[in-house]
Parts: sequence; structure tokens; C-alpha cells
Amino acid sequence: MQQLPVLSAFVEQHATQKHFPETPENLYDPLRYFLSIGGKRMRPILTLMAAQAFDVSKEESIHAGLAIEFFHNFSLIHDDIMDAAPVRRGMQTVHEKWNSNIAILSGDVLLVEAYQQLLAYPDHRLAPLLQRFNQTAIEVCEGQQMDMDFEARADVSEAEYIEMIRLKTSVLLGCALEFGAILANQSDDTRKRIYDFGVELGIAFQIQDDLLDLYADPEKFGKQVGGDILSNKKTLLMLRAKHLAESKNDSRFEELIQMPANESKIAAAKALFIELGAVEEVTSVMNEYYNKAMADLNSLPILEELKAPLHDLADYLLNREH
Amino acid sequence: MQQLPVLSAFVEQHATQKHFPETPENLYDPLRYFLSIGGKRMRPILTLMAAQAFDVSKEESIHAGLAIEFFHNFSLIHDDIMDAAPVRRGMQTVHEKWNSNIAILSGDVLLVEAYQQLLAYPDHRLAPLLQRFNQTAIEVCEGQQMDMDFEARADVSEAEYIEMIRLKTSVLLGCALEFGAILANQSDDTRKRIYDFGVELGIAFQIQDDLLDLYADPEKFGKQVGGDILSNKKTLLMLRAKHLAESKNDSRFEELIQMPANESKIAAAKALFIELGAVEEVTSVMNEYYNKAMADLNSLPILEELKAPLHDLADYLLNREH
Repeated sequence: MQQLPVLSAFVEQHATQKHFPETPENLYDPLRYFLSIGGKRMRPILTLMAAQAFDVSKEESIHAGLAIEFFHNFSLIHDDIMDAAPVRRGMQTVHEKWNSNIAILSGDVLLVEAYQQLLAYPDHRLAPLLQRFNQTAIEVCEGQQMDMDFEARADVSEAEYIEMIRLKTSVLLGCALEFGAILANQSDDTRKRIYDFGVELGIAFQIQDDLLDLYADPEKFGKQVGGDILSNKKTLLMLRAKHLAESKNDSRFEELIQMPANESKIAAAKALFIELGAVEEVTSVMNEYYNKAMADLNSLPILEELKAPLHDLADYLLNREH
Repeated sequence: MQQLPVLSAFVEQHATQKHFPETPENLYDPLRYFLSIGGKRMRPILTLMAAQAFDVSKEESIHAGLAIEFFHNFSLIHDDIMDAAPVRRGMQTVHEKWNSNIAILSGDVLLVEAYQQLLAYPDHRLAPLLQRFNQTAIEVCEGQQMDMDFEARADVSEAEYIEMIRLKTSVLLGCALEFGAILANQSDDTRKRIYDFGVELGIAFQIQDDLLDLYADPEKFGKQVGGDILSNKKTLLMLRAKHLAESKNDSRFEELIQMPANESKIAAAKALFIELGAVEEVTSVMNEYYNKAMADLNSLPILEELKAPLHDLADYLLNREH
């Protein structure tokens, strides 16, 4: 994990020191604010790490990394409006600190700034970067719409859920990694392998997030444990528990859904989902995606010693060594 | 005006027949709807007309034109949320027909689709198109923010107002025209002249819009005459009338502002603004921008016969022959 702190500091410096115009203040102050409250910057770090594995310097790949980071922050600013979320990273969201109109517009301009970062590259790199970026941006919007649609639907399937998280969160990890390969002029096959590695890792990460929502150590989790259960969110864990309960004619799942949102409901869910075998099965699905990701990583035409940082980062993201 | 109907039909066909994915319906139905209710498509027509003047076919320039049209529609969808506008082009706005969340997200994806259109061009065209497009997109966001900020300010100057309309509406006309010159590989000087032509024309057009708001024939105007007066909007006409009244110690302007929003207020404004000389002076400012635009158009290295359609279109936009 030697690379991680170096790349993390490098990204942090560039993300927070990005110069936006002074005025209009109500357009650019929200961006200065939101980019300063951080997050782990995992996505741009993936870009820089992939680039380094293909022998492209962090100085050259930082613009592609910032494009990813700006896009990610644009999508968070707009998602927070849609979810009416008051808090992000322990701080007020943009629409809460200013208002929804300002959050819409500053989000819009941040998306344009993401594209602006790609203009740092020569013409023959720009087209493939833009192609992958646009495709990814469209898919992230589709995933967000599916997520909103699912709230109003009773019949979401596990396949649909996986497709939703693939689009909403995972393709951006694939894009972040593929940017490194594009900058290094790698073959289509290599580009696809590192993209798939990112997407599969992203799906595994999201499934882990579903599990942690209920089973994390509250001391370490950083957000309310059981939030998904309190809102009856249709996560993979919920969908699998429902399916298992139905196949066993076990009425406790439906009773759980009807329970009021309180600590008893969380405790009941924790016990029931283990008893039904849902936790075990969902953990197994997560491991399948993790293993597929690792197989793609291992198949990349990179020296093992250069793969190590990506391997370490994957393990870090999936809490494998913590 | 022979070219106009041909190009208009060509753009209309491509704008309404653009294929979006079937699902998620709540993401793409709003785009199919909003693009089908049209508007005059003046901006993409400017792109195609400029391209033709430099001997680039409408088939080649249509993608650049659609990028402009998609961007314009993206900005309208988001602006309508911010303005809480229920109606656009005589039809329900997207946030009114669906909801604000859907309008935010479908607007976002339409902005990405605008960039996607630019990928139709080879690498060496893509970079200059993207450079101009990004700069313009950023400025349009800045102009929209200034417009929102002005509502809460009492001290807006005329220079600030002109700068706001330059950013919010005029630079996109310049960009639309410059796209034609970029596709034809014209010099930086030519690109700047046709860009300036569009920006100046756009400012003249917007000032005319301020005048028409109060003095248009209600039969022909298409929207409520006097809307700006009823909301005390700080247009150039209002700012000039205020300035002239103050310099003459005429209290009627402040009395007008205090009047309730009704037909009497509109009638009073119409008479007062003429009497103060504001209409004459604002018309003169408009003509200055129009004349600057014409000087830039005339200076372009294009045969006179190829300039004619742009001249005709400018006259059409500025109601010179109607």
C-alpha cells in the first residue's frame, strides 16, 4: 500500500486546489465547498494507479482522474437533491446549505468542468476518453433513474438490482481504471479487462455496502447502521431474504417489513436474515464478483509487481485486510 | 430566405427522430417529449447555415447543430425547474408533467447526449469543437446564475445586465455559428468574427425581446404582453427608464414599481417609458449591437451571395422584414 498515500495526497491536492472563478459566487462557492469536504477520492486514485501500472505518470493522468472525480461530485450534488439528503460526508449538502436551484446549476457546471479536464490531452487521446466517459455518464444517469423507479415498485428482481448498481456506481470505477489504460495506449482487449475488473469490483463493493449497512460495527461505520432496513430499501440482502422466506413459507419477512422503523426492527432483521441464510448467500454472490474481478486483474498484461497496488486497493475496498 | 425552410425541415427531422433508448422510460420519455414540442430550432440552423457558407454540407454539420440544440434544451429543462415555470412553448414543462427529480436527471443526460453528438467528428475537429462548447456551456451557467442573483439585488447596472444576457443567451448563438467555421477549418480570425457576429446578434435579439415584452402586438406575441413589468423584472428597458427618471427627478418610475400587477400597470409603463425616452434609447442600444453584428458579418471572407442567408436570418430574428 505504499502507492496509496502518495497518490491520495496528490489527488487531494489537485481536487481541492482546482481554481474556479471568483464570481458568480453562488455558482462557484458551492463547488469550492463540496470539493473541499472530500471523500476518499477512490475513483481518481484508481485512474492514477492504473496509469502507473502501464507506466504513465501521475502528472499525466491527473486530469483524467479529476474528470472522474468532478463527474462523481456532480452526480452526488444532484443525487442529494433528488434524495432530499441533508448531510453528505458529515457536512451539509449543497442544496441544504444554499438551495436546490443553486445545487442544480453548480452541479451542471461541475459536469462541464469534468469534460474540460479531458481537454488537457492530445486529440488522439481525447476521442477514446470522451467515448468511454459519455457512455459511462449516460449509464450512471440510467442507474440513478432505475434506483428512483425501484422505490415505487414491489417486484424488483435481483438481476434488476444488480443491473442498477452496475450502472449507478460500478461503471464509473471501470471507466476510472480504463482511463489509465487509454492514456497508455493499451489494446482494446486490455482496456476491456481492466474496465471489467473495475465494474466487478464495484458490484462487489456495493453488495458489501448492503451487508455493512446492517452488520457493520457502529463505532466504525460512519453512518447509521440499519438505515436500509428502516426505509425498507430493496437491497440485494432484502431481495434475497424475501425470496428465501417465500420459498420456506416463512411469514416473518413480511412481518418485518410491517414493523415500525426502530431499533427492534434492526435487531429483528439482523437475526432473521442470518437465520434465513440470506447473509451467507449474499456474501457468496459478493465473493463471486470479487473473484471475477481478481481473475480479470490477474489476466492483465502487467508485471505482477505493478499489479500489486491494484490488488491491495481492491482488498482495501473490500475490507479484506482490515 | 430559400435556405431557411430547407435547413429548418432538416434540423426538425433530426431533432425529433433522434433515437433514445426505450428504458428507463422516466429518463428518456421526457427527452422524447421535450424535443418533440420543438421551438424554432434557430441555433442549429445557425450552425448549418454557417457551415454551408463555408461549403460544408448540412449532412456533415448536423451533429454539431444537434449538440447545440440538445444543450439548449438541457438548459431550458433545468431553467424551467429553477423558474418554477409551468408552461414552455404552450406545453407543460418537464418538471410539471413529471417531477423535478426527473427533470434534473433527464436534463443531465441530455447534456451528455450533446457531447455525444460531437463524437461524430474526427479527432482533429473534436478538440476545437469541445473547447468552444465547454467554454460556452460554462458561460451559459454563469449567465443563468447572474440572472437568478439579479432578482434579489436592487443595484443591477446596465453593464451587468448586458453581460448577463451575453452569457445566458448570446454566447450560444456565437458558438452555434463558430461550429460551422470550425468544421470548415477556418482561421482563428474568421472563427472570432463569426462568433462575435452571433454574440452581438444575440444581445440585439434579447434587447428586442425586452421591448417586445411591452410593445408587441398581443395577437402575434405568443406570450403575455407586459410579463416583465408585472414582475418588475430588471430588463434593460426597466434599468434605463429608472436611470432617466432619477436624472429628471421624476417620481413616476418608483410609483410604477409600487403599483399592483394588473393591466393598469402595463398601460402606465408603456406610456411612461416612451415619455421618459427609454424606449428610444434602448432601441438605439439594440441597433448598435445589430450594426456591430452586421459589420462582423460583412467582414467575413465569404462571397456575398453565400452571406445572404445569414443576413436574411439576422433580419428575420430582428423582425426587420416583418
